[in-house]
Amino acid sequence: MLKYIYDFSEGNMNMRSLLGGKGANLAEMTNIGLPVPPGFTVTTEACNRYLEDDELWPELIEEIKLHIGNIERITGKHFSDETNPLLFSVRSGAVISMPGMMDTILNLGLNDQAVIGLSNSTQNSRFAYDSYRRFIQMFGDVAMGIPKSLFEYHLDQRKEKKGVANDTDLETEDLKLLVEDYKALYKEQLGEDFPQDPFQQLFQAIKAVFRSWNNPRANVYRMLHGIDHSLGTAVNVQTMAFGNSGNKSGTGVAFSRDPSTGDNALYGEYLINAQGEDVVAGIRTPQKIATLKEIMPTVYQQFVDSVNILENHYKDMQDIEFTIENEKLYILQCRNGKRTALAAVNVAVDLVNEGLISKEEAILRVEPESLDQLLHPTFDPKGLEEAKVLANGLPASPGAATGAVYFTAQDAKQAVENGEKVILVRQETSPEDIEGMVVAEGILTARGGMTSHAAVVARGMGKCCVAGCSDIRVDESSKVIRTMHDEIHEGEQISINGSTGKVYFGQIKKQQAELTGNFKLFMDWADELRRVKVRTNADTPKDAKQGFEFGAEGIGLCRTEHMFFDENRIMIVRSMILAEDMEKRKEALDKILPLQRKDFYGIFKAMQGRPVTIRLLDPPLHEFLPVKDKDIQEVADLLHVQMQDLKDIIRDLHEVNPMMGHRGCRLGVTYPEIYRMQTRAIMEAALQIVAEGETVQPEIMIPLIGDLKELEYCKGEMYDEIVSVFEEKGMQIPFNIGTMIEIPRAALLADEIATQADFFSFGTNDLTQMTFGFSRDDSGKFIHHYQEKGILNTSPFEKLDQKGVGKLVKMAVELGRKANPNIHLGVCGEHGGEPSSVDFFSRIGLDYVSCSPYRVPIARLSAAQSAVREKMEKK
Amino acid sequence: MLKYIYDFSEGNMNMRSLLGGKGANLAEMTNIGLPVPPGFTVTTEACNRYLEDDELWPELIEEIKLHIGNIERITGKHFSDETNPLLFSVRSGAVISMPGMMDTILNLGLNDQAVIGLSNSTQNSRFAYDSYRRFIQMFGDVAMGIPKSLFEYHLDQRKEKKGVANDTDLETEDLKLLVEDYKALYKEQLGEDFPQDPFQQLFQAIKAVFRSWNNPRANVYRMLHGIDHSLGTAVNVQTMAFGNSGNKSGTGVAFSRDPSTGDNALYGEYLINAQGEDVVAGIRTPQKIATLKEIMPTVYQQFVDSVNILENHYKDMQDIEFTIENEKLYILQCRNGKRTALAAVNVAVDLVNEGLISKEEAILRVEPESLDQLLHPTFDPKGLEEAKVLANGLPASPGAATGAVYFTAQDAKQAVENGEKVILVRQETSPEDIEGMVVAEGILTARGGMTSHAAVVARGMGKCCVAGCSDIRVDESSKVIRTMHDEIHEGEQISINGSTGKVYFGQIKKQQAELTGNFKLFMDWADELRRVKVRTNADTPKDAKQGFEFGAEGIGLCRTEHMFFDENRIMIVRSMILAEDMEKRKEALDKILPLQRKDFYGIFKAMQGRPVTIRLLDPPLHEFLPVKDKDIQEVADLLHVQMQDLKDIIRDLHEVNPMMGHRGCRLGVTYPEIYRMQTRAIMEAALQIVAEGETVQPEIMIPLIGDLKELEYCKGEMYDEIVSVFEEKGMQIPFNIGTMIEIPRAALLADEIATQADFFSFGTNDLTQMTFGFSRDDSGKFIHHYQEKGILNTSPFEKLDQKGVGKLVKMAVELGRKANPNIHLGVCGEHGGEPSSVDFFSRIGLDYVSCSPYRVPIARLSAAQSAVREKMEKK
Repeated sequence: MLKYIYDFSEGNMNMRSLLGGKGANLAEMTNIGLPVPPGFTVTTEACNRYLEDDELWPELIEEIKLHIGNIERITGKHFSDETNPLLFSVRSGAVISMPGMMDTILNLGLNDQAVIGLSNSTQNSRFAYDSYRRFIQMFGDVAMGIPKSLFEYHLDQRKEKKGVANDTDLETEDLKLLVEDYKALYKEQLGEDFPQDPFQQLFQAIKAVFRSWNNPRANVYRMLHGIDHSLGTAVNVQTMAFGNSGNKSGTGVAFSRDPSTGDNALYGEYLINAQGEDVVAGIRTPQKIATLKEIMPTVYQQFVDSVNILENHYKDMQDIEFTIENEKLYILQCRNGKRTALAAVNVAVDLVNEGLISKEEAILRVEPESLDQLLHPTFDPKGLEEAKVLANGLPASPGAATGAVYFTAQDAKQAVENGEKVILVRQETSPEDIEGMVVAEGILTARGGMTSHAAVVARGMGKCCVAGCSDIRVDESSKVIRTMHDEIHEGEQISINGSTGKVYFGQIKKQQAELTGNFKLFMDWADELRRVKVRTNADTPKDAKQGFEFGAEGIGLCRTEHMFFDENRIMIVRSMILAEDMEKRKEALDKILPLQRKDFYGIFKAMQGRPVTIRLLDPPLHEFLPVKDKDIQEVADLLHVQMQDLKDIIRDLHEVNPMMGHRGCRLGVTYPEIYRMQTRAIMEAALQIVAEGETVQPEIMIPLIGDLKELEYCKGEMYDEIVSVFEEKGMQIPFNIGTMIEIPRAALLADEIATQADFFSFGTNDLTQMTFGFSRDDSGKFIHHYQEKGILNTSPFEKLDQKGVGKLVKMAVELGRKANPNIHLGVCGEHGGEPSSVDFFSRIGLDYVSCSPYRVPIARLSAAQSAVREKMEKK
Repeated sequence: MLKYIYDFSEGNMNMRSLLGGKGANLAEMTNIGLPVPPGFTVTTEACNRYLEDDELWPELIEEIKLHIGNIERITGKHFSDETNPLLFSVRSGAVISMPGMMDTILNLGLNDQAVIGLSNSTQNSRFAYDSYRRFIQMFGDVAMGIPKSLFEYHLDQRKEKKGVANDTDLETEDLKLLVEDYKALYKEQLGEDFPQDPFQQLFQAIKAVFRSWNNPRANVYRMLHGIDHSLGTAVNVQTMAFGNSGNKSGTGVAFSRDPSTGDNALYGEYLINAQGEDVVAGIRTPQKIATLKEIMPTVYQQFVDSVNILENHYKDMQDIEFTIENEKLYILQCRNGKRTALAAVNVAVDLVNEGLISKEEAILRVEPESLDQLLHPTFDPKGLEEAKVLANGLPASPGAATGAVYFTAQDAKQAVENGEKVILVRQETSPEDIEGMVVAEGILTARGGMTSHAAVVARGMGKCCVAGCSDIRVDESSKVIRTMHDEIHEGEQISINGSTGKVYFGQIKKQQAELTGNFKLFMDWADELRRVKVRTNADTPKDAKQGFEFGAEGIGLCRTEHMFFDENRIMIVRSMILAEDMEKRKEALDKILPLQRKDFYGIFKAMQGRPVTIRLLDPPLHEFLPVKDKDIQEVADLLHVQMQDLKDIIRDLHEVNPMMGHRGCRLGVTYPEIYRMQTRAIMEAALQIVAEGETVQPEIMIPLIGDLKELEYCKGEMYDEIVSVFEEKGMQIPFNIGTMIEIPRAALLADEIATQADFFSFGTNDLTQMTFGFSRDDSGKFIHHYQEKGILNTSPFEKLDQKGVGKLVKMAVELGRKANPNIHLGVCGEHGGEPSSVDFFSRIGLDYVSCSPYRVPIARLSAAQSAVREKMEKK
């Protein structure tokens, strides 16, 4: 005969498909010797048979009765007992948890006798009758389908009659009357008495769980998530334990280690003579777990032992719910405990040191994104408690910053020169604000999403930023921030938290990050385990140094255009762009050459011989041009041209879709002299490093390649220039020339392009824009609708779209390697520092990822996790 | 012993790799019995051996002498003969013709004796000495490497001494002196006498041809085009024939049929006692070929016979060069004759009727693009001769138009209402100009390329357009066109030719197209042969009718947004866009519904039951919004909102990259009520047609799909609406719902999308934009640099980029068919009417192409050609 019921002691963790997730977990805890309230699981197979037969069959009923009998023997409690009644909770438990399944029924077994028993055993008759009326309501509603509102109607009537407002104001006698009301309602609705027989209650409850498998919400959920309809749900029937049955009882929650710091010491709290709700409600103040030792030393020791068993079994810090009923300890639930990043790292390292887990396991225990908490300064928790929130925005770039608000780059610079700390506040930022962003402690914008200019640049700088803060209006002309109720004027202090998006009034104290001790050890393990290299994106020696400190193994993207925005250079750049002919353009380029050479020299120096990938000029030229009349006039004066002529030129440079316009290597094709100048600056700087006896690995990257011939043309020009530099200096060094792969066509034709490229660097930002046809600047207008309607789970600019964009990347990797087995492959888009994307890049065989300095540790850990998981899957 | 030399009589057309293209052709003509001047070909194998040995080997020299001997026997002419000297032309002839190869050397064999012979035989001593001095120069320069400038110096000296300016002013005696100058120069430069021995001349010339195979230009060309360096070149040595050797000699050019009309009558002209240059130079007036019959009846008959042989052999109208030397006819060259589209169609049909070629062959004889000439009105040739060109622009949309210039849509409409014919002249057009474009005879713009708004819309309308006419400046405020020298004011007449890009002063008479007779027959054959269906893009009943007349088998793209620009509707549309909430938006949509229904009804009606694919709203909403203050004020008044508030809303709707912004099905997701209204309008119109007892095949197309869930969401909304319509009307009809495939991601994930799509229509315009990352509006700024530098051959917006974009299309076809074998596949981008692209679409198995009405016949022919070629390749 098929076995349809398993006592908790008969199952284990691996029987999920038969017992469901919850049942398997209860069985596991029981079997490792934990004091779990006894019970049994009705299997998913029973569910499937019931859904076919539409009734419970005699053998099953016998089997249920048999198990109830066992539990009565074990617990000494009995159904309908007037001193110590046996009561159960009944819960659904499918293999995969899903919404729409039946709610829990508690206190099953209560009837007119048992309620007396409960009153006696808990010495709390109000609690007993309140439990009874709740049980009738739960059973009537959940199992028998009586509308909840009808029960609520009776409850309201009862309160009205007594002239009170709250449920808690009803006393035992009121609740007794309410029980009678509910029983009458039950009969009126169903034409039969509320069942006094606990077995009848149980059979009805089990059938209700089974039926809930087929309710419409669960059906739709399974359809949407491709879950097999034939899995069925199990039913868990478990003895109730009462922490409120007197002063020898209690309930609590504890962590096996400190979830804030990771310290290996029991951490938690409990209440005597209380139920779970009482701890949560916060009416009584719970006691520290350590004090239990004095009150109930045996129970305390038993709890400590249970915690140790659990940690040893699950090999991780546990979050444990427990109840004590008359000095008997019950473990109701345990799971891996939530913790801060600091605790996560410390616990992982300690567990390795304690010999409980391997380094590989430790690596998987820390959420890579959480490391961010450890890298940035944070607000002092005490200060934060007292702070008042001004507004909420998007957590665009993590960290904490405090300063006086200023509304223009110019004003911000001035204030910093005067010794102030500054928060730059803008409607949204543009390249012209760069200098203000550089000097500011943090940036706050009212518009723009997680991938807006402000957000991207701030993350690149490792600078705190709250973007898209739609709660505020930034009035740049009056120099004031307005919210519904408040105004903040220029010079007033605010604090912003780029990790949460919160903006606060006034100053808040900060605490610095530390990168030593367990953190360092943990990251060293990650480095041992990962295959994929991690580089940093860095445009300045300062960023390069920061990335280096965070463990970057090179620079994967050095954007040269940011160097062009410097106040001292922008005029030269503008005269280069507006030059009438090639000769004048070369004149301007000659002035830029020594400046760029100096930039590159500094960056090479900072990276101490590691590879440095420099991307040649990428953005559309018009981005460098002045917008305001005042600035246009200034340029016109400098260039000795008429204001109107200059305006005409600027208008001609305007583009309808600049993202897909005259930029990237298209500039290299139309104005080869620009790429030649940059190539010369790079090679001259590199030779200077070598002349000083140090090493250097320059890699020159051509952006926006879409065709082999583009690459050949640009390379031809660059080789010419490099040969000249080598001849002039009388020495030569190895170098690489490669391409960004960021145009879909380049990915499709990667086999051709690979024949002429030493490396590919996937620019997944632009590749995502073009593969989706989503402008990063504009998609904010509709992308939230997509998320609300379930069309997109996450923005593809945050997590790589592995299915679509990833397919292109994978294709390019395969085509590229086939055509050029020596090609070096990396990624330098924002995705290079996002864990799920790094996992993908690691699996498809990229050689490195590159990300902004502050994400380097996150990428290192993600890459290690990917390697460990892949190794585990292969086993 | 390897045979290195083939007499013309020994070779044939199929020996190109050994004899080169020219040698094989001369052999073929010789062998089909044409009187070709005798000669021989030195093979490519000889070339390769020479390039290895670096000298001519004795056996080869013997072989050459042997063949010269043969020719002396055949012709009765001899080297160095003082009465009738044997002279040769020496030409290179590779398998594939390429630049950089050695120029022709004429009159080889001339020396101090032969020049006398030439003088005697031609009875023209000036000609003889002029030929001699030219031969020395050619031989010295081309074969021996003496700088041309040195020869020119002597020629100039000679003219100066005589005091004349032109070469033709030098007389025989002067030329004799010049010959002596040249011989002295030759000796001075090379240290040896100019070779008097014709054999020495010949050996040097042959070696020079061989060496030219390895000159740098040819080498680079082969490298760039992937031509095998080991192919080598052949050398053709051919007897000279002299049409200027008296009154029994002559030269001419003839077509076997009339190249303008295709009439089957010999067509051409000749000059007695003349050389080829004389015909071209135009100093003497040539005679009609028919008159030769009277002067030299035998020769004439021989020529007619030759022409017949040629036509029968090549089975096409021939363009023939001939020379008569002392009543002996020589055919020097023949090739398929260039012809007008009219002639091409007539010749092809006639050749089939004459039994010379099959229908399949006939189909391949007409260049599809050339049909355009037959579909549009053209300028009367006589009128054109007298017209004066004002400026040159791009031939953006074919046809001819004459009218008075007006500078705004409003003015144009007014003028048309006053009975004028109008050319709308704009700096560039925008959607707001649509109404002006509709009423105008033609459109002229100063800015914008072949794919600018003006060009695309005009082609869609089949309306003549000259775009990007940078020769003019359009001063819209003063209402004047300015060129360097002229001004055209409002109301003055101009004529524009959209097939050539030329703009003329004043009016020119036009002639209409005819679509009957041979043209109809020819197109019927094309329809029999093609597999791919051809539909038309049409947004109005008028366009639909035009497409239908041109043979469209349905509508492949009906853009609904153009209906929104109508003056009477734009205000409703604007109030829909600017609606504060869904209710107000629905109110506006309810007003648009009956208008759209009427549009669809008209289009269904025009297509008489053929399938009609209607694309739901696609462009970004802000395109519909007013730009000018005056218009904004008008909308503000209508909507009872403040001007400034409206401006704010419009600014919010502005996008950085609108092409990749909030448009297409993204509107359908954010404002589902818009797509519901359109769906309702379509189905109500369709049911109305059915209620009238006619048939209808509505197909609804969702633009810009990038993910299956987007499609599912939009379809869900549309189904809801369709079910409501069916219920309300109490009847239902079959319909299809499909998607555009124009986002790279949609192509990559076509297998998923196909599960929910009845059809795919490839939007290759947008797909090209996103696959290349080329904004169509902006790429004009750099794409010509790409063409100049050889990076791109043609704009990918004109001819489909088969390698990149085509790879995506092919991938989507395969994935789509695999997932949904019943899926119907088509293309509705501009490429649907471009021959090379249609060929590609046919080969990868699309079911149909769709293009603007005037390109339907071109697509029909292209599809037929593709089918024929594919059939031939399979044989």
